[in-house]
Amino acid sequence: MQPSPLLAELIAALQFLPGVGPKSAQRIAFHLLEHGRDKARRLAEVLERAASDIGHCQVCRTFCESEICELCQSPSRDAATVCVVESPLDVVAIEQAADFRGRYFVLMGRLSPIDGVTPASIGIPLLEQRLLAGEIRELIVATGSTMEGEATAHYLREIAREAGVRATRIAHGVPIGGELEFVDSSTLSRALSSRHEY
Amino acid sequence: MQPSPLLAELIAALQFLPGVGPKSAQRIAFHLLEHGRDKARRLAEVLERAASDIGHCQVCRTFCESEICELCQSPSRDAATVCVVESPLDVVAIEQAADFRGRYFVLMGRLSPIDGVTPASIGIPLLEQRLLAGEIRELIVATGSTMEGEATAHYLREIAREAGVRATRIAHGVPIGGELEFVDSSTLSRALSSRHEY
Repeated sequence: MQPSPLLAELIAALQFLPGVGPKSAQRIAFHLLEHGRDKARRLAEVLERAASDIGHCQVCRTFCESEICELCQSPSRDAATVCVVESPLDVVAIEQAADFRGRYFVLMGRLSPIDGVTPASIGIPLLEQRLLAGEIRELIVATGSTMEGEATAHYLREIAREAGVRATRIAHGVPIGGELEFVDSSTLSRALSSRHEY
Repeated sequence: MQPSPLLAELIAALQFLPGVGPKSAQRIAFHLLEHGRDKARRLAEVLERAASDIGHCQVCRTFCESEICELCQSPSRDAATVCVVESPLDVVAIEQAADFRGRYFVLMGRLSPIDGVTPASIGIPLLEQRLLAGEIRELIVATGSTMEGEATAHYLREIAREAGVRATRIAHGVPIGGELEFVDSSTLSRALSSRHEY
């Protein structure tokens, strides 16, 4: 016996969520029907509205339903220091962790010619324009340390150099509080080769 | 910096889903916005429809958008053998696992006077009616082996007895393929006390 057609549809649709397989979809569906119909309706309404209304900030490209995001509008953030990240999640992480008072530029991806991701598709022309306009004094490159992240970082360094803007890269190394024995070998090797005077 | 108001709303609403905390809600939200707006819209539509249209089967109480569920309507299922379970998930589990050809009665809960769950709130009057009507010859009690599940089982046995209907309980014991050393002690103790001639 299958669940009723509508229930089967619901279970299938819940599997659109990343990390949700058939079993959890079933559990979520039954849970919502049993204990949370109002919540299910509310989630439906917000999902629909978010999918339709959330676009990208015209300055930094992060997700945002207005033309320019709050952070890009904020006069208390230093417009001359721009941190380039791959995803809006990275902005959230940096905001939670650090006392960074500059602004961001969100690539919404990273260079990957194999997958057809070119500089243009991650908004680099927009960044280049701002670099050339002279409003940025330091470009902090905070893309990931994957191969694509590093390639993107190199590309960003080059366009900064051409525009005469100082480019910096966030430090990579052993995490704070980490025991050396538990650190993976590529991190450890990077930490050693990036050693500095002490 | 907070995510934009609508994004914050979406992240909050995604936390209505069981097992989804703030971090995963954030990840799900960004994923849907980046890669799955159509899927998000489709999920919203199905959620809304399911929350409004899915009710309970009038015979067995399982979730279903029609008056009587497919299984209760099916002429190939034996109406004289009824398996009582706590939740629609149990029906799915039994249907997947076993060659059971009878029908179900879904309590949508279990007796728990402390939480105000009375026989009436888990549909027992409806079941009693059917027992007294004489259509059921065997009532298989498949509620859980928690304290409330057992209390519910006892109650069901009593009402079956009063109606002169045979009640049976699913077997509890060591799982098939399980090594004794990994079986929890209450299961093992139950398996020993329920030993049978061999």
